[in-house]
Order: sequence, then structure tokens, then C-alpha cells
Amino acid sequence: MNVNFKKAVSEVIDFNEAEWLLFSESMIIKHYKKGEYFLEEGNLCNHVGFTIKGILGYYYLINGVEHMRGFYFPNDFFSNYKCFLLNNKSTAYIQALEDCSVILIHKDEINMLNDKIPTFHKLSQNMLEKIYISLSEKFELFFLKTAEERYFKLISERPKLIQKIPQYMIASYLGITPEGLSRIKKRTS
Amino acid sequence: MNVNFKKAVSEVIDFNEAEWLLFSESMIIKHYKKGEYFLEEGNLCNHVGFTIKGILGYYYLINGVEHMRGFYFPNDFFSNYKCFLLNNKSTAYIQALEDCSVILIHKDEINMLNDKIPTFHKLSQNMLEKIYISLSEKFELFFLKTAEERYFKLISERPKLIQKIPQYMIASYLGITPEGLSRIKKRTS
Repeated sequence: MNVNFKKAVSEVIDFNEAEWLLFSESMIIKHYKKGEYFLEEGNLCNHVGFTIKGILGYYYLINGVEHMRGFYFPNDFFSNYKCFLLNNKSTAYIQALEDCSVILIHKDEINMLNDKIPTFHKLSQNMLEKIYISLSEKFELFFLKTAEERYFKLISERPKLIQKIPQYMIASYLGITPEGLSRIKKRTS
Repeated sequence: MNVNFKKAVSEVIDFNEAEWLLFSESMIIKHYKKGEYFLEEGNLCNHVGFTIKGILGYYYLINGVEHMRGFYFPNDFFSNYKCFLLNNKSTAYIQALEDCSVILIHKDEINMLNDKIPTFHKLSQNMLEKIYISLSEKFELFFLKTAEERYFKLISERPKLIQKIPQYMIASYLGITPEGLSRIKKRTS
């Protein structure tokens, strides 16, 4: 099992050996080439993922324009969790922005693990808390901070990884034009 | 115990009599006069609430201007759940928009219930799923829909209750001016 994934899980829950084995058997490792999709608009989202390698982007396509709304970096959990919970078709895309390796667990496997491992719900709860906090912070950032402040938050959190993402995607994420992003970078360089 | 609260809980979890008693004893009922606060900026949020009567508003105060970001109606769970989880000071206000009665449960009581009632985590998980879905829908609405579409969603979901909320608060929630809201209402009346 991937070391970082095991570490992330172990911080929340203390599986015994048999439980680790069951858990390991429930997951698959998948590789996406740059540009391939974990999820497309109109599809169901039946998996929760964990990024081992690479960066994924979460965006909406509105009138033919990509509106980037989030990035998933190595050691992040990811999913369109609303669709996952509601069995709804996705309104968003999750795409590999570079070659990626991820761990995927299917909803049926999560239900099975919930039945078979008495403490498994702690992991589900913790993961949901993390993605709720992340969405909540994103929501606050959009309302309380300027594009410039949001840019600094992004580069301060992920200084190296952010350099791998095309500028137009970062601009889209910040809700500004690529020219606006260039101006922010010039002003502050 | 309030009938609607018991119903909302019973849909998720099947407490026995002793568990219901323990649960009942863990909650308090509180009344807020119109204008009073459940939560103010800079304060900790140690309670989860359930609205029995009245409407509460969730807003940020930015440069002296209220930016309304959500409403809680009867039979809604409410909290600043991010602050609740992280023990952070709130950046938002939750205020009674009319005289309200609510059920409150303190974080310590929730921890106690989690220890004493083996299935209690199902309720926590369900509540978190609901507030995650609600925030996620709100986030999508802001990016995928126009102010007019958001207005129709609001009045179609809560046609009667929405009439009790001042127009300037609804306009703020939709991210438009009160004049903009008047124009939408005129165009569509």
C-alpha cells in the first residue's frame, strides 16, 4: 500500500492486520495520462480517490469556457462528493493536469468496509470533515478575499506544485483574466 | 422533545428509549429575539443547532456591509460547522431574522453521546453530509446560475418563508443590488 496513503489513514484510524488487508483489497490503483478524466459532466461519481502522484483539476464548463474551481495535489483525497452521496450526475469535470497515479475506492467497497470494520465510519467521517472544511474555506476565500490575496494563499501553500499549473488555469481559479494574473505577479515580484 | 426534531433524527437513526432519554437530556432549547445572535465574528462556535421556529441568517461583515450567504428555516440544522470542527474563531455571523426558537447541542455533549450510543456516529455523519451537500449546491449555484435563476430556486423552495425576509437581504444573498432584485421581480411578475 502507498506509504502516504497508509500514513493519512493511520492518523485517523488504527486498523488491525486483517482490517488493513481487507482495506487494501478494496482499492485499485489507476493511472491517468495528462488530459484524461476521472470524471466528466453528466457521469455518475462512484469513487473516492487519493492522489499518489500528479495534479488534478476540478472545473465547470460554462458556455464552452472552463471555470477552474479546485486543484488536487499529491496526498489529497478527491471526488465529486455531492454526486457521490446523492447518486447525481456530475455538473463538473475532474481531469488530470499532468500524468497522475491515484488510489480509487468504489462506493460499494466503502459500504462493505463500513459493514465489516466496526471503526471504519471514523475514516468516512474524517474524510468528509476534511472536504467540508476545504469547500468551506474556498467559499469564504471567494467572498472575503481579493484575487491577489487568494493568489498568495495558493502559492504560499503549494509554492512548487503551483508552478506546474498553466497560468490560464490559475487565473480561472482566481476568477480573473490571465492578464489580471500577470499584473498581480508583476506588482508583487 | 420537538416533534419535527424527533422526526428528522428518526429518519437517520433508531434510538431505543434509554438512548432517546440521554439524547434529550443533552440538548437545550433557546429563544432568540429578532436581531439577536447565535454567533458573532470572532467567537467560537461550540454548538450545533436545529431551528424549531423562525429564520436565521448567515452573513459576513465586509467593510461594514453585510454580505448574506445563507438562511436557516424551520427544521434546518445550522452551525458554523467549519469553526465547530476546527475550534476556530468565526468569520461570520448567524443572526435571528425574526423571533426564533432553536434546539442547541454542545460539542461536549456530542462527544459524550458518541461515546455512550454506539450508533450515534450515523447521525453526525448524516448531518455533515447534509450540510456538505447544501454548501456544495450553494457553491455551484453561484458559479453556474444567474442571479435570476438563483432567485427562482429560492422562492420555489421556500415560497412562503421567503416573504418574511427583507428584500435587501435577499438581494445581498443573490449578490445583486436591491434595485437589481426589483427588476428581476418586475420582469417575471
